[in-house]
Amino acid sequence: MNESEFIAALRKLPLHPGARGLEDDCAVLTIGGETLVITHDMMAEDTHFLSHADMADVAWKLLAANLSDLAAKGAGPIGVLLGHSLGSDDARFLAGLDEGLRTYGVPIMGGDTVATTGTSTYGMTAIGRAAHLPVPSRKGAQPGDGIHVTGPVGRAMLGFEGDEDHLQAFNRPVPRLAEGIALAPHVSAMMDISDGLLLDCWRMAWVSGVTLAIDSAVVPVASRPRMQECMRWGDDYELLFTAPEGAALPVPAFRIGTVRPRGSAPLLLDEAPLADPANLGYRHG
Amino acid sequence: MNESEFIAALRKLPLHPGARGLEDDCAVLTIGGETLVITHDMMAEDTHFLSHADMADVAWKLLAANLSDLAAKGAGPIGVLLGHSLGSDDARFLAGLDEGLRTYGVPIMGGDTVATTGTSTYGMTAIGRAAHLPVPSRKGAQPGDGIHVTGPVGRAMLGFEGDEDHLQAFNRPVPRLAEGIALAPHVSAMMDISDGLLLDCWRMAWVSGVTLAIDSAVVPVASRPRMQECMRWGDDYELLFTAPEGAALPVPAFRIGTVRPRGSAPLLLDEAPLADPANLGYRHG
Repeated sequence: MNESEFIAALRKLPLHPGARGLEDDCAVLTIGGETLVITHDMMAEDTHFLSHADMADVAWKLLAANLSDLAAKGAGPIGVLLGHSLGSDDARFLAGLDEGLRTYGVPIMGGDTVATTGTSTYGMTAIGRAAHLPVPSRKGAQPGDGIHVTGPVGRAMLGFEGDEDHLQAFNRPVPRLAEGIALAPHVSAMMDISDGLLLDCWRMAWVSGVTLAIDSAVVPVASRPRMQECMRWGDDYELLFTAPEGAALPVPAFRIGTVRPRGSAPLLLDEAPLADPANLGYRHG
Repeated sequence: MNESEFIAALRKLPLHPGARGLEDDCAVLTIGGETLVITHDMMAEDTHFLSHADMADVAWKLLAANLSDLAAKGAGPIGVLLGHSLGSDDARFLAGLDEGLRTYGVPIMGGDTVATTGTSTYGMTAIGRAAHLPVPSRKGAQPGDGIHVTGPVGRAMLGFEGDEDHLQAFNRPVPRLAEGIALAPHVSAMMDISDGLLLDCWRMAWVSGVTLAIDSAVVPVASRPRMQECMRWGDDYELLFTAPEGAALPVPAFRIGTVRPRGSAPLLLDEAPLADPANLGYRHG
């Protein structure tokens, strides 16, 4: 099975109402009058990082990817649980994790370690507290809404390629926690851009039952000549959101298009319909 | 690093108060007047299961191991998040997971999937609601308490070896959820026996600062001639607990010894001190 087939099959199992049909980045759990936001992300050697990567960066990115999911739901982190494969440079992994935890003020709550015989896989569960209700979802973009991103895409791509100016963007991505919390009351839909802007726009449009019309000329990219690649590369962790026309946004953001009623395709790029999510971004598995 | 070294180093990172110093099976999170119990367990190919294993059994055991941790804290499950490596028999994995979820009335809340190039690693986070406060801990055994187990140890070992009568014990272990909830108000310390009775007794004694004196003649074992092995093999998922002398226990349990003030070793087996946890059970990593 590929990832899409697996998730489709998983949807037939008993689902918690807070699972949001497995269509969102996080689960939402209302308990004791509070609302928790819970996410689990994994990173696998060869798929998400290479064996010669600095394990401090791998740990940072594992944390950042999880916190980015909380950010996209407007949640502040409470803590994380770590699923750790022993055997790589564990001391460097712990150093990078420590740095990330202290940077974002997040404590470890628990976890598990395993010895693996092959490549290493790391997992993390992040638990946050929703700062605003309802918790923003991917599903909620309305025709007429503006489409926005919090920053440029393609920086991680350039960093991956060795561009000194963008190494940090690739190795130490920044989860947009403060932005997510500030934006939550103003958005109709929100998610983080982990797998590529166009693919994530397609996904938001798909679950919202609308069309996202993107104007590439105004998409903030790290490299204008390589705009098409920038819009398809992942790992930038900016926030993608829609908000009613004229909404007073509390943080700087770039307007990249407008939501329309569902047309011939979930995504229009410069008016060209993109019906198939293949080749729009990075798809794991 | 081995597992003990890694966890020792992890303890130096920022820890949540509910992490219980990483000395317990679960984290405890009090939120809005409710108390959640959260655990994360992993299973790795070659370490926890062989590549030819029925993936339905692997999924069941992953779920059972997580639910068993909740059971040991007297918590009822709310839901689970799955970290899944694609590429083995995913359909069988889902079938076994589905069966387990329906058996224990537990829904999926979310998760992640990854493509891996080597061996497969699976993770699960289980979230439960504490049925009794304070949430039982490994730390709390008091001199004079009786030491008890909810059932025999060694059944999984015989099942692993192919004994028809015990195949289910190995392939489809049963988390003692109802027993854990019933016992929670009565115990001074509780944990599940996942890595071997003697090793887990040693651990409980260690964190409680006491000595557990075990009388092997009264330990319920699946095979009396192989008693020593039965007490060292893992995967049985019975509950180990201590309770004040004369406590009216709400479920059947086997008294296997008595807690004493810390003596020359954390563990006494038939009065022989066992100071070193090596060779007492199954240690991953």
